Amino acid sequence: MELPDIHKFPKEKLSQSDIEALEQSAKRARLTALTMVNAAKSGHPGGAFSSMEMFMTVYGVADLTPQNCNDIKRDYVVISHGHTSAGVYGAIAEWGFVPVDEARAHFRQIGSIFQGHVEREVPGIDLGTGNLGQGLSAGVGFALAQRANGHNGRVYVVMGDGGQTKGQIAEARRMAVRHNLTGLVALIDWNDIQLSGKRLDIMPCDIKALWEADGWEAVETDGHSFGAIYEALKDAGRNGKPTVLLCKTIMGKDGLIMEGIADYHGKPVSNDDYAKIAEHLGESADTLTKALEKRKTKPTFTGRKIDFPSAPNIDTGTPFDYEGEKVSDNRGAFGKALADVGKLNYKKDGRTPILVFDCDLVPSVMTGKFRDACPENFIQCGIQEHSVATASGAASLAGVVSLWAEFGVFGIDEVYNQQRLNDINHAGNKTVLTHVGLDVGEDGKTHQCIDYVSLMRNMFGWKLVVPVDPNQTDRVTRWLLKTPGDICMAVGRSKVDGLKYYTGSYTFEYGKADKLREGKDGAIFALGYTAQIALKSAEILSTKGVEVSVYAVSCPLVPDMSAIAEAVKTGHVMTIEDHNVNTGMGAIMALESARKGIVLPKLQTLGVDHYGESGNSDAVRDEMGLSAEKVANSFMEGR
Amino acid sequence: MELPDIHKFPKEKLSQSDIEALEQSAKRARLTALTMVNAAKSGHPGGAFSSMEMFMTVYGVADLTPQNCNDIKRDYVVISHGHTSAGVYGAIAEWGFVPVDEARAHFRQIGSIFQGHVEREVPGIDLGTGNLGQGLSAGVGFALAQRANGHNGRVYVVMGDGGQTKGQIAEARRMAVRHNLTGLVALIDWNDIQLSGKRLDIMPCDIKALWEADGWEAVETDGHSFGAIYEALKDAGRNGKPTVLLCKTIMGKDGLIMEGIADYHGKPVSNDDYAKIAEHLGESADTLTKALEKRKTKPTFTGRKIDFPSAPNIDTGTPFDYEGEKVSDNRGAFGKALADVGKLNYKKDGRTPILVFDCDLVPSVMTGKFRDACPENFIQCGIQEHSVATASGAASLAGVVSLWAEFGVFGIDEVYNQQRLNDINHAGNKTVLTHVGLDVGEDGKTHQCIDYVSLMRNMFGWKLVVPVDPNQTDRVTRWLLKTPGDICMAVGRSKVDGLKYYTGSYTFEYGKADKLREGKDGAIFALGYTAQIALKSAEILSTKGVEVSVYAVSCPLVPDMSAIAEAVKTGHVMTIEDHNVNTGMGAIMALESARKGIVLPKLQTLGVDHYGESGNSDAVRDEMGLSAEKVANSFMEGR
Repeated sequence: MELPDIHKFPKEKLSQSDIEALEQSAKRARLTALTMVNAAKSGHPGGAFSSMEMFMTVYGVADLTPQNCNDIKRDYVVISHGHTSAGVYGAIAEWGFVPVDEARAHFRQIGSIFQGHVEREVPGIDLGTGNLGQGLSAGVGFALAQRANGHNGRVYVVMGDGGQTKGQIAEARRMAVRHNLTGLVALIDWNDIQLSGKRLDIMPCDIKALWEADGWEAVETDGHSFGAIYEALKDAGRNGKPTVLLCKTIMGKDGLIMEGIADYHGKPVSNDDYAKIAEHLGESADTLTKALEKRKTKPTFTGRKIDFPSAPNIDTGTPFDYEGEKVSDNRGAFGKALADVGKLNYKKDGRTPILVFDCDLVPSVMTGKFRDACPENFIQCGIQEHSVATASGAASLAGVVSLWAEFGVFGIDEVYNQQRLNDINHAGNKTVLTHVGLDVGEDGKTHQCIDYVSLMRNMFGWKLVVPVDPNQTDRVTRWLLKTPGDICMAVGRSKVDGLKYYTGSYTFEYGKADKLREGKDGAIFALGYTAQIALKSAEILSTKGVEVSVYAVSCPLVPDMSAIAEAVKTGHVMTIEDHNVNTGMGAIMALESARKGIVLPKLQTLGVDHYGESGNSDAVRDEMGLSAEKVANSFMEGR
Repeated sequence: MELPDIHKFPKEKLSQSDIEALEQSAKRARLTALTMVNAAKSGHPGGAFSSMEMFMTVYGVADLTPQNCNDIKRDYVVISHGHTSAGVYGAIAEWGFVPVDEARAHFRQIGSIFQGHVEREVPGIDLGTGNLGQGLSAGVGFALAQRANGHNGRVYVVMGDGGQTKGQIAEARRMAVRHNLTGLVALIDWNDIQLSGKRLDIMPCDIKALWEADGWEAVETDGHSFGAIYEALKDAGRNGKPTVLLCKTIMGKDGLIMEGIADYHGKPVSNDDYAKIAEHLGESADTLTKALEKRKTKPTFTGRKIDFPSAPNIDTGTPFDYEGEKVSDNRGAFGKALADVGKLNYKKDGRTPILVFDCDLVPSVMTGKFRDACPENFIQCGIQEHSVATASGAASLAGVVSLWAEFGVFGIDEVYNQQRLNDINHAGNKTVLTHVGLDVGEDGKTHQCIDYVSLMRNMFGWKLVVPVDPNQTDRVTRWLLKTPGDICMAVGRSKVDGLKYYTGSYTFEYGKADKLREGKDGAIFALGYTAQIALKSAEILSTKGVEVSVYAVSCPLVPDMSAIAEAVKTGHVMTIEDHNVNTGMGAIMALESARKGIVLPKLQTLGVDHYGESGNSDAVRDEMGLSAEKVANSFMEGR
């Protein structure tokens, strides 16, 4: 019995034969899921079974097929409760995305794409998830990207009910309403059971009231009726609101002994029960035997590459030059360059749209000029950072350049896990952190982001640039907008000097340290704007007859080993950074040098070694021993 | 005019003269706030003015005074919108917590306790805040601690309206209702203006509907009427629900030119305007002149020490011994020890209560035995990690031992910023991370917490212990329950061997590496359970005639430099860790050694150098090169 072609709702209602075909497929898909879990001896069959009609219908109606799943202009599907992966794989096998035998055999096995939670390597999966609460935010990001690309599509987000308590979901709901994303449709698998028991015993939450309070259309639906789900999905958005389907379901539905039992949230059934359920679903215990046999062989279905989205088509314009003392803050230079590139590309045919996300910080992060020049591509999100981090990451996977400018503590400390998931998803998020280090002005320690180098270093894909001056900031801004992958640029709050070195024909090269001063008696490696402090320290040292080299480091994650090798010859190496002294540039240099057997002579590491105080940035740095005078003194003491 | 004594609501309504006295005080407090901001040339006067009647009333009615503010059994006050600090300081100066002249002179100045956002060094401030959205969660924690201590008090949480969009607040609301915290009272400064404009332009959010949907009693109140606020506070909780006062206010109220202007959210007024406002508030421009004069002198009011809460009074019992191959998982040993200590102290006179927080993970994090033995001290919180991280931290500041057991990725990656605020607040949170490293079973990379050492290293106060076996896990569990300060213990999922070394009279000592094997040809430092892999690698190497020492490291944040100095003599040092190889124990050892001029010969660092796959833990480790065989091979290659 062939599955009916129901993509994009060709009919008002499903026919009886459509429903029969879907039901037959769902039986096979459930057995695929159960077989995967039993073959792997690990997985989550309960939710896989309760969500099955939702999965089958969504992948049926969505404008998302094995043929178009790598295109940009199409529908998107996010499975937020990623632990139901076996169920999702069962369903998409029915719709032809993956071979069913491969899925049944190679779940949660080394070398297989059918990993623990859904992942983008599998065609049909638009987002790797697994940490609850992020899916709806991603759906918002996809929908914003669709709109920016002039595509009037749908985004489906399937979620569990237990995770409805995560605060990030509420943030995403409000973003969707604020931006009028009527093509966004959420489906909740409402089975009232979660890992350790009944939902209402664990944490009551009035799901319907909350979605409605945030302005969504909430529709209660039988989550096991193909007809009901189809019709509700078809009608979604009709009232000009984003829509959530509250799908009443039974945990483990159609799984005999599994039905309604919390225990099967996360464990396989016994072999005996497997046999009974397999028979009930139209096959036999033999299905598992065959899967186990095939499991001994290597997976052959390798899925797809999920490398960073390819380089966007944008004109990055001509850099501005800044020269002079305290000529601009780096965030200001960023804001000007961003607006310049924005204007050059806004609504130009064939250009990749640039979306800029904001959390009520325009005057501080300097994105106002972009907002004024490109109003439709400026996305105001309110104070909802978790949701924004995920949404901007997802948007970057759907054909836009996606940039979020934010205070350091909110753009990475608060949303570290969201940025980690962006990394796992190989997103192309551009996060511009302002007010990093002690350079936050008077706000004090809760606002001092002194760990961004370390946090980025924990992830394997992110690039990080900490520019030295407004000239470099301008050039890095243009570079990052054009460069694929997750990239973070981090700048402080204060005005700094514009250095001649970075003007004119200077071109930014990722990973290169810049030698700003030559000296034979020692070398200072300085992170970002602290290179300007180091230059002043070097002048002070020079008056004492001590000549030091100064290397400006703007790419702390990739130490410039040739610069280090050169510096070592001076016999004295110092590092300075407006960052936790234990976890930043100095720590990275020490490790990479030790790995290569390079000894950093008389190594002195200066940086933030306690939470800073509140005061003007010069005073706060001075208290930390990071003024030019104190750095020079430290160098002399270390000789 | 003396302020009336209204602590704990001695009367039904305020009298006319009470109100007049409060109004007069509020004028002075507003001028204190404005003077602070103008003297510092930095701060947030708008919200300070709009919240003033709320601040004055809350500090008036609360059972919180300069005399009892260091006690445990009293009311607690949390100011969630910490940027209104100048207003708070103005108000508490009126209630005698701090000297008004000191506050007016020394705001946001190095060496002063009156820092950028409210901080616990200031008497009357129960929580240092500044990152929006955390205050209500802290209030929940204080209320839970009060109850555990048998104290029937109130907790007041004052919040802004802009930050109402933060998802964490919704999580806290649900925790309060789930645990029936009717003494918890929230007040929202509803002035409809935030940093970059009008609240409804930035991110609409139906504040009242959301609080009600989560089960709170929401009361609309005139936020500038002392009488109305007093009466509403007095009535709070009457209907058996936690109560929120929606206080309608005017941004910059009573500040003439400031009224209703978003711009004064975060900047001082001009000197001319200051003079006009000062006169309007009953003083003159002279107030600022005096403050600026005094600002040139050193602050004399030093506030209070906020060292870690003192050691709790609990009986930690007698450790259990485990011996044999794969005798227990470390999380199981933790669960047993926790239940043992729980039982010994539960409802015993004079003992410090032990609260255990859970996010729907009992069967996985093994806190079920504690829950069964100490049901009233087990706090089920649902899948709401941000709120729990803050709540458990706050509870630890209010006279309980507060422990949260959680998967690594949710207990630190997802809530890194909340744990950072716990650190800044010198809390005594005990966070037990399970399923860390690749040892999460088949869940795959989204669930592999490979960065916990690095994240803890970013903070200055946290201790971290990664036990080697069930015996050490048992002993560390008992130790951390009794030891002040924020402490994290991190364990994997798999069963491991019980080592004789850690049985019997072995006592855990923070910072000491354990030499488990002696060898002259090299030394392996291994983090936590990977010491057991290292021991097996050492046996393999021994069959090749190579004898290596094995040092088990359970305290990676404090490298045992004497062990390192000893190991260096063997001429070959290797590190192994189930952690990001760039940011964990090896990185710390490399930096600390380089600082001391110690060269780690032939350093090899083994660990996680890409996101792991999904499979059983042995297979996943093997893929990463961390099996005993592959470690031994790597060592031979590095000779």
